[in-house]
Amino acid sequence: MTKPIRVAVTGAAGQIGYSLLFPIAAGDMLGPDQPVILQLLELPVAMNALEGVAMELTDCAFPLLHGIETSDDPMVAFKDADVIMLVGARPRTAGQDRADLIKANGPIFTGTGEAIDAVAADDAKIIVVGNPCNTNALIASSRAKRIPLKNYTAMTRLDQNRAIGQIAAKLGAAPSDVKNVFVWGNHSDSMVPDFSLATVGGVGEGRSVTDLVGEEWLGGEFDTTVRTRGKAIINARGKSSAASAAFSAINHIHDWFLGTGHNDFVSMAVPSDGSYGIPEGIIYSFPCRITGPWQYEIVKDLEVSAETLERMQKSANELLSEREAVQDLL
Amino acid sequence: MTKPIRVAVTGAAGQIGYSLLFPIAAGDMLGPDQPVILQLLELPVAMNALEGVAMELTDCAFPLLHGIETSDDPMVAFKDADVIMLVGARPRTAGQDRADLIKANGPIFTGTGEAIDAVAADDAKIIVVGNPCNTNALIASSRAKRIPLKNYTAMTRLDQNRAIGQIAAKLGAAPSDVKNVFVWGNHSDSMVPDFSLATVGGVGEGRSVTDLVGEEWLGGEFDTTVRTRGKAIINARGKSSAASAAFSAINHIHDWFLGTGHNDFVSMAVPSDGSYGIPEGIIYSFPCRITGPWQYEIVKDLEVSAETLERMQKSANELLSEREAVQDLL
Repeated sequence: MTKPIRVAVTGAAGQIGYSLLFPIAAGDMLGPDQPVILQLLELPVAMNALEGVAMELTDCAFPLLHGIETSDDPMVAFKDADVIMLVGARPRTAGQDRADLIKANGPIFTGTGEAIDAVAADDAKIIVVGNPCNTNALIASSRAKRIPLKNYTAMTRLDQNRAIGQIAAKLGAAPSDVKNVFVWGNHSDSMVPDFSLATVGGVGEGRSVTDLVGEEWLGGEFDTTVRTRGKAIINARGKSSAASAAFSAINHIHDWFLGTGHNDFVSMAVPSDGSYGIPEGIIYSFPCRITGPWQYEIVKDLEVSAETLERMQKSANELLSEREAVQDLL
Repeated sequence: MTKPIRVAVTGAAGQIGYSLLFPIAAGDMLGPDQPVILQLLELPVAMNALEGVAMELTDCAFPLLHGIETSDDPMVAFKDADVIMLVGARPRTAGQDRADLIKANGPIFTGTGEAIDAVAADDAKIIVVGNPCNTNALIASSRAKRIPLKNYTAMTRLDQNRAIGQIAAKLGAAPSDVKNVFVWGNHSDSMVPDFSLATVGGVGEGRSVTDLVGEEWLGGEFDTTVRTRGKAIINARGKSSAASAAFSAINHIHDWFLGTGHNDFVSMAVPSDGSYGIPEGIIYSFPCRITGPWQYEIVKDLEVSAETLERMQKSANELLSEREAVQDLL
């Protein structure tokens, strides 16, 4: 029998967690033949609710779910974890600006980072979903001594998916026919959706998205819609994105493990290696190529316009100032 | 390309709906190669929230999701629908007894039944999830002139899954190793979980669950836990079962379309044909064998103990009195 993969999830009784755990147990993330053990972390105040979630997971009789563990202690929840999904974060309160949000979340991620490096599997893979995810991931990764820095990532896959969704809807195409759309930078409204290499159509018959819909829409309405989609969802639903964030996190881990299918690369926020002039020491969304199970590399050979490079730098500068705001935690 | 299957879902912006739609779009219900079009129905007051859900579905860029339609008109939402999942229902209010709940829901399902028979696909398959699901299904089916009565079903798969989950946990076995557990009767605490044919273990090496854990636990704690699980979930989560109900509805439709895998049969509440002395004219959970895509038959050749037969009759009597309570709607 295939050895189960241990998946730790924080904020497991929260809204994103509730949308995330069941599809993981159904095999959507790690494939239809890969058993999983879920290791769920919550705050002490949410342990009753988490127990209810665990009961519902048991009630589904998922064939691949070989165990459920619950804890309010990161040293227990991250023990031997192979995949760690950091979903829990302090949400933004009314009137709070981004800088305050960053400072409120920082201390959560120092403790998280220490526990991960202390007890997780040697080659654990980490995705941060809780916002501000790039800087939260940076804080957690600052505690990494044993686990490779490269394994700390943050989620911009939701932004990429939103971009693909908009293009597919505009063209009346299936989302699976839209290829090689990606996102640079911070998961904030400074992000840079990149459509310059995007194509639509079957293999060998792809046509340039830019040729089909034109720069005006792409540089205008499309760009704004993708960057501000989170707020639009809150306005419509009265709640922030949960299921779309959960399924994008599933996509992120799925592709990292099993490959990107028909896409040549995928958006992941990863520790910068200096490519494209983006400084090292921040976690930044790049197009990443999956070269094998749990192996990625930043795609380095892309032509980027001067205008895009300038916006990419602005997003990097935002991340540098976020880092400055939490400097005492690093 | 495979023709998309049109799946209509009511109560689509509710909690079960929110847990249901995304895995359907991911392929969990109809298989990894089957495109779907979602046709979502909500009350006028929830159309904003539904728009937000549709936006999030678009944002996932699901390869199999070939369309999303939203409406507050059943005649639009059920148009040409191949699969109809009736999730929306009026929840029980504080102090309301079951009889009042049944009367409050009845009128919803007469309108639903009329719209389905008027506009859905000729061979549409219906599952009622909204409670009291057996009698709601009966009311909807009472309007069937064009669509075969046999296509109207209600969900007891959650009860079956809960039973499997309890046995697997008791034995420390994987849920997939527990076979042929099923549920008779009404989806209420009169239901009869049946473990008499249940086995655990791989193919050809299955051992009787009764031999392994004993009648005392099965007839006592197990039976009570399965029948009252819904209340236990509410106590723990502070909310009723949503994701486990959603994934069980997915299981119900999946198996009806694609087969029961290693199980010989599966629990479905279907129009009684008089088997086991259960009167015709009610929708009752039987073990059902899937004989082909969208084909089921009630398993007729099972030996049932006198005690179980008596409980089965009690559950049937409850359904007869529920029918009596809505007689003017039929």
